[in-house]
Amino acid sequence: MTCNIDETHDPALLAWVASANGHSDFPVQNLPYAIFRRGDDRARIGVAIGEQILDLAAVADLGLVDADLIAVLQSATLNDLLALTPAARRRLRHRLSFLLSDSGYEAALLPHLVAGADCTLGLPATIGDYTDFYVGIHHALNVGSLFRPDAPLLPNYRHVPIGYHGRASSIRPSGQPVRRPNGQLKLAGQEEPTFGPSRRLDFELELGIWIAGENELGGPIPIGEAPKHIGGFCLLNDWSARDIQAWEYQPLGPFLSKNFHSTISPWIITPEALAPFRQAQPARSEGEPRPLAYLWDESDQHQGGLALDMEVLICTERMRANSISPKRLSRTKASHMYWTAAQIVTHHASNGCNLNPGDLLGTGTISGPTRDAFGSLLEISSGGAEPVTLPTGETRIFVEDGDEIILRARAEREGFASIGFGECRAVVQPAVT
Amino acid sequence: MTCNIDETHDPALLAWVASANGHSDFPVQNLPYAIFRRGDDRARIGVAIGEQILDLAAVADLGLVDADLIAVLQSATLNDLLALTPAARRRLRHRLSFLLSDSGYEAALLPHLVAGADCTLGLPATIGDYTDFYVGIHHALNVGSLFRPDAPLLPNYRHVPIGYHGRASSIRPSGQPVRRPNGQLKLAGQEEPTFGPSRRLDFELELGIWIAGENELGGPIPIGEAPKHIGGFCLLNDWSARDIQAWEYQPLGPFLSKNFHSTISPWIITPEALAPFRQAQPARSEGEPRPLAYLWDESDQHQGGLALDMEVLICTERMRANSISPKRLSRTKASHMYWTAAQIVTHHASNGCNLNPGDLLGTGTISGPTRDAFGSLLEISSGGAEPVTLPTGETRIFVEDGDEIILRARAEREGFASIGFGECRAVVQPAVT
Repeated sequence: MTCNIDETHDPALLAWVASANGHSDFPVQNLPYAIFRRGDDRARIGVAIGEQILDLAAVADLGLVDADLIAVLQSATLNDLLALTPAARRRLRHRLSFLLSDSGYEAALLPHLVAGADCTLGLPATIGDYTDFYVGIHHALNVGSLFRPDAPLLPNYRHVPIGYHGRASSIRPSGQPVRRPNGQLKLAGQEEPTFGPSRRLDFELELGIWIAGENELGGPIPIGEAPKHIGGFCLLNDWSARDIQAWEYQPLGPFLSKNFHSTISPWIITPEALAPFRQAQPARSEGEPRPLAYLWDESDQHQGGLALDMEVLICTERMRANSISPKRLSRTKASHMYWTAAQIVTHHASNGCNLNPGDLLGTGTISGPTRDAFGSLLEISSGGAEPVTLPTGETRIFVEDGDEIILRARAEREGFASIGFGECRAVVQPAVT
Repeated sequence: MTCNIDETHDPALLAWVASANGHSDFPVQNLPYAIFRRGDDRARIGVAIGEQILDLAAVADLGLVDADLIAVLQSATLNDLLALTPAARRRLRHRLSFLLSDSGYEAALLPHLVAGADCTLGLPATIGDYTDFYVGIHHALNVGSLFRPDAPLLPNYRHVPIGYHGRASSIRPSGQPVRRPNGQLKLAGQEEPTFGPSRRLDFELELGIWIAGENELGGPIPIGEAPKHIGGFCLLNDWSARDIQAWEYQPLGPFLSKNFHSTISPWIITPEALAPFRQAQPARSEGEPRPLAYLWDESDQHQGGLALDMEVLICTERMRANSISPKRLSRTKASHMYWTAAQIVTHHASNGCNLNPGDLLGTGTISGPTRDAFGSLLEISSGGAEPVTLPTGETRIFVEDGDEIILRARAEREGFASIGFGECRAVVQPAVT
């Protein structure tokens, strides 16, 4: 996120793909990568442009990129692309920006454009390890006061970017249904736990951070180097079974309450695309501790934040049957992250833990300070006490079977083309009986 | 672990490799698999026989195994072998038992035997996900009383096989040095944390469980099916920085205190090899809760335990300089596991979490009830209060730079050939400055 604003961010730049030039998530200033499949065809790397996907394996086959990028773009995952240096990644962005905005390439590339609607998008990368953090301070306060009224924010919170390992194998791309988990529940008023479907299934609105490059085991990543290890961002719904969590999480943290499924948006939004939307990290208040030296970098404080609006919507089965649009449950901002992406990466590697290209980090739930900005139903419904009413008259305190949860994010700044993340959505299916 | 005792366990069976027939960890009744490399040669699958390794890629090339096993044995990892059905794995065991005990094969196979001492052993498999459990009840009690004197064993412990996700990328095979981690420490008497080398570096004596087969996301593994998903066992040293752990672990569990390095023994000891050493799980005492139905299986209670002695030894730099043998710090038994391997697997998948061949589960530290059977220095030294004295006069409350920690395990039963696990060892290097 030391990337500069350059000509690829020029708001006057138009693509020769018409759908990219309106209020699209994917104007030519964005250029995110995904893995797509059309019908039975093999998985391929694509770049989004408006409502279309440009097949980058085909672009490579045509010899339209530098020779060192050809094999990278012919892969079935984005791991090799995430292993590129930031300079090589910028070179690719510049090339794609040129190819998609210069109408001289339209004839050659048109056969390799496919409608996004005709494609299935997969996981962008083989995820080696997945780690989830807890940097949304309003979320930590809200959940802390439900689980630990005496000590909502623990003494370590303002010193340590708290994180824990999650499950890589159960991460799925947007669009795949989520099975409600069974688990041990300690029901109110009962002495012994029972086993059955979670009754308190929740979403969590998070950002995902894709790791680029790698550090050797034993070799930390200084905070000034951390931006080189950030390959992009996505949306992440960290599905959570609150009742399983409450019973299992002491003393070693959440486990089965989280690892049954996590949904991510399929597009990797690059740090280069987000360059115009960098902003200063909110200053710490009087009395708040200054981060330890290994987490402190003036440049990161100055531009390590992201001007990004995020929202979560719900669409129940009855809403779909009645063609009622999804209802927004919450709208928040990435600026509620207490720690920057660079601080998260540096902390993770500070003990020598090795991060690899394609590893995924979650930020943790990014809630704002008010109910209309809370990033989970646990918070929105005050732990189940205050139901949300939907346009059908239905109410929700947690997620019900058939509900679809949709996450969106959009970066906007005066004088720049706004860019979006695409959607992260999934419908909940009943538990296995 | 429904596997039966058969002719491959006959104690009278001898290998034509002489070193296998004494008090070896690897008699012909064991037949564990590993990935080995000789010099610059490629990584290959081998089976241990005494002090030798038989190159199974060569055995496959010679056409000495069934056709369906040839590609599996030519792989550079054991993931495909772990994906085999138990029946296919048993078939391979029978074949290898025959090839290594029938002297008619000696001439053909001798060129493909290599001395273990000339080889480097790698990670057995590409580890997709790593999960660590906490099933050593004496360890949970000991550590619980240090961290939470009021409530050493939490109310969920006897109901839930407590586990949490760990880091797959930093697991290394025996023999690779461990770098002491830096991290945030809250030193006694100080208001604010500092960043520096851990002062309370510890080992943890655990068993590793290799997952075989797979379950689809959303599809649990019934307890009766769990044995099919267990592909083998190894030793696991879950290196732990107690000071980093104490400061970071609330509320989401251990993270940087554990993920800097984990050491495993390189040989996969199969369930088939362990068949003679199955034993009943200790009965629960009066007043202890009976496990919930999804974790309860009569057959598993009857034979889900393992008769396995485990020990941990230390050898300091000074001991090595003076040619003093490693000193045993502790000796314990796998029977101190409160939950069986099958219960661990079934619990893990009970919410639909998908397990894959080559995933690794740790049992958690397996301490016995007395100090000479504790599986970590935290317990042995009572949290640093009671130093251990070594033959050189040196004392230890935690692990020092230059110390080598060695784990061993051996299964014994009257009337059967005893088998060992090989060693899990690593020397501690100073922290990065």
